[in-house]
Amino acid sequence: MPGAVVTRVITGYKTGQKNGIKEREDWTMNRDIFMELMVKREYKAVRSILDVMNTVDIASLLEELDDREMATAFRLIPKEKAADVFSNMNNAMQSHLVQMFTDQELKELLDDLYMDDTVDLLEELPANLVTQILETVDGEKRAQINILLNYPQDSAGSIMTTEYVDLRKDNTVAQALAHIKKTGIHKETIYTCYVLDNRKLAGIVSAKDLMTMDDDRTMEELMETDIISVYTHTDQEEVARLFSRYDLLAIPVLDMEERMVGIVTVDDAWDVAVDEATEDITKMAAMNPSEKSYFDTSVIQHAKNRIVWLLVLMLSATLTGTLLTRYEDAISVVPLLVAFIPMLMDTGGNCGSQSATLVIRGIALDEIHFKDLFRVVYKEFRISLIVGVILAAANGVRILLMYRNMKLAVIVSISLIGTVVISKIIGCMLPLLAKKVNLDPAIMAAPIITTLVDTCSIAIYFTVATRLFAL
Amino acid sequence: MPGAVVTRVITGYKTGQKNGIKEREDWTMNRDIFMELMVKREYKAVRSILDVMNTVDIASLLEELDDREMATAFRLIPKEKAADVFSNMNNAMQSHLVQMFTDQELKELLDDLYMDDTVDLLEELPANLVTQILETVDGEKRAQINILLNYPQDSAGSIMTTEYVDLRKDNTVAQALAHIKKTGIHKETIYTCYVLDNRKLAGIVSAKDLMTMDDDRTMEELMETDIISVYTHTDQEEVARLFSRYDLLAIPVLDMEERMVGIVTVDDAWDVAVDEATEDITKMAAMNPSEKSYFDTSVIQHAKNRIVWLLVLMLSATLTGTLLTRYEDAISVVPLLVAFIPMLMDTGGNCGSQSATLVIRGIALDEIHFKDLFRVVYKEFRISLIVGVILAAANGVRILLMYRNMKLAVIVSISLIGTVVISKIIGCMLPLLAKKVNLDPAIMAAPIITTLVDTCSIAIYFTVATRLFAL
Repeated sequence: MPGAVVTRVITGYKTGQKNGIKEREDWTMNRDIFMELMVKREYKAVRSILDVMNTVDIASLLEELDDREMATAFRLIPKEKAADVFSNMNNAMQSHLVQMFTDQELKELLDDLYMDDTVDLLEELPANLVTQILETVDGEKRAQINILLNYPQDSAGSIMTTEYVDLRKDNTVAQALAHIKKTGIHKETIYTCYVLDNRKLAGIVSAKDLMTMDDDRTMEELMETDIISVYTHTDQEEVARLFSRYDLLAIPVLDMEERMVGIVTVDDAWDVAVDEATEDITKMAAMNPSEKSYFDTSVIQHAKNRIVWLLVLMLSATLTGTLLTRYEDAISVVPLLVAFIPMLMDTGGNCGSQSATLVIRGIALDEIHFKDLFRVVYKEFRISLIVGVILAAANGVRILLMYRNMKLAVIVSISLIGTVVISKIIGCMLPLLAKKVNLDPAIMAAPIITTLVDTCSIAIYFTVATRLFAL
Repeated sequence: MPGAVVTRVITGYKTGQKNGIKEREDWTMNRDIFMELMVKREYKAVRSILDVMNTVDIASLLEELDDREMATAFRLIPKEKAADVFSNMNNAMQSHLVQMFTDQELKELLDDLYMDDTVDLLEELPANLVTQILETVDGEKRAQINILLNYPQDSAGSIMTTEYVDLRKDNTVAQALAHIKKTGIHKETIYTCYVLDNRKLAGIVSAKDLMTMDDDRTMEELMETDIISVYTHTDQEEVARLFSRYDLLAIPVLDMEERMVGIVTVDDAWDVAVDEATEDITKMAAMNPSEKSYFDTSVIQHAKNRIVWLLVLMLSATLTGTLLTRYEDAISVVPLLVAFIPMLMDTGGNCGSQSATLVIRGIALDEIHFKDLFRVVYKEFRISLIVGVILAAANGVRILLMYRNMKLAVIVSISLIGTVVISKIIGCMLPLLAKKVNLDPAIMAAPIITTLVDTCSIAIYFTVATRLFAL
């Protein structure tokens, strides 16, 4: 019977993947079966399932269990997989597990965990648990952990691991391979090896070179000396950018004295890139970014993340309102003027955020720099003229057809072109200026620009209406 | 003298990286030196510089040259680097080079280029050049290229390469290593090896296993059989998501008959992830995404990408305007009412796009699914109440202080709470509903929601003002 269950679970998984998308219905079915087995204490079947499942999927599955069941299930995971499953869990689950572990279990886990995952864990745990854990590990490892814990958040030092393959210049390929065979199993990656000379990084050799070159070649002959490296204090966003630009699998991290202290691997860099994109997107929508996922963030925290910018923007929007009251007379005389305010404001806001978004993304991807300011403004100016004229024509025709009022059509069309041009120029300039003075360009996106653009559009509209046409 | 120049170029590069950020000033200096050397035909120095530079940086450098100079410089690149530099160039440069190449040069390049890069190149070239290239390569390779060219754009088949290491079940570690030593140099990655059985994928073995396990173990014993794979028609976005979830270095691609036909490597998956994030960000700002970077897209194309949504949104904003005209009487009596319209509309728009943005990003990261709809709405409802009450209180106090008008303060505050609640609920629901009916959630972001929210906020405001307070 357990065998049949395993097949059902695995079949569900494989079928689901057939269309390139894991069907969540199948997933849910597996989860139900798994939970039923847990409740019925069919631990032999559970063990068989855990034996064939991927560690990432096991971590997701355990997330669905309550704390006690999770600890039971975790102990059923084959020993060689346990640390890997653990490092794929979220922080809350990890904390629960650590608290339920015996000292012996904790020691075994810490022995198998890579250094960067250990540090990630410790950064999230309450202080008393950290002390408990640091007492469990031996002196050398404790010293290493303490160093890693002291690197600033978001720096290369905080995401690196200290487990990498180091070779000497005079090592031959055969010696290097023997060295890897002996020590490689405990390294996070063996695919990029580092040739050290007096603790300084002299060159890098890829496992591909070692596997395809003759046994008697030395590292000094094979190593690449044009090395892309970062420092422990390098911002993790810059680290991710280097991975993307140079298609790296790992990057060496140096301290201020140029000594090699660790590596960042591509999977951690990928996570950074995803998080940074999420952070930019969140800021562009006028929110403080959250460290946690949507559901893991509490209602109160969500409200906190959103309220500050909403308050700032609301109060600054009253500027626009106050401006409107200056034209009360015009509005009383021609109430129809009001009808075009939302259209002008919205179009201005949309135009501005289009330009701002492209520039912010361009900055993030390292494609647009401050020195390009005038190039960008000139490009946006030409684009805004084309776009503005088309919008004005469409709108002018609509007003003529609906209200048969030539004067109104001309006023609105002129205002529209003015609004589009101003919006796009404000939209493209603000992020670049922000970058120049070391502010975050993403903060300059849609919302701030909207407020600025609203004020400009109202000013243009009523100036055109009252001055040019003396309404 | 060439030696000194090389040192200057390289020193500039290293110093620039010291703070973790390559300083562009230094870069520009190198570029100037390089161009000067090109103009002076100091080809020996140029060759020395190209010899030590990274292939990615060489590609960027060549971008600055005019077409003829670029072809000259390209011919000075050491032969073993040339294909790598070529695959890092943009399409325009690649086309120019191909047109300038002799048949012999073209053949050499194509021999060294990986299959996925060859296909990328062919996809962008004009038809006559494609024919010319296909005539240069041998029959087997031509057949392979033709198959790859036929996979739909954005599918796993279109980004995969056919060069991977294949092993047999009965191969020992020693045999596998010997096989890699013989053939590995031409494979895009050797770090994940594929055990095939009658062209079907039986298991995967990592190079780490091969390098750390005993020589007489067989592939059948070592191979992992719980394989994450995709099909040729799988959407590339899903491929990127699997890389991110399972921390993969490569993923095998199967055809409809479950035969292994290629692999996608992590660097290509990374590019897809970055492009997809850019695409989402672009759509959320109401633009059609562009395949090219900001500067590579022409003014006309930029205008095209932006005008459609602007037109749609402008015309739909007139809905709001038309709605406003229904309240002309109220406005004539109390013109001050107009003063709060921008604030209400902006706040509603900002609230809606906050919620929409988080949900759209959650969908993209696979954290939020349609089945969570009610959970999301309930969460947003509670958040909106907290946020709405705070905003209303702040605004109410401001109105009391500025206008000493209790009635107005109450009207605006009630309208504000209503607007915030409605905006957040619309904002979180629309992307999920879009996803359900297979529309792109990102399209549902800020702009469409703004229009909907504007209409709602005006309706709420004037209903409260005219009905509840009989203004």
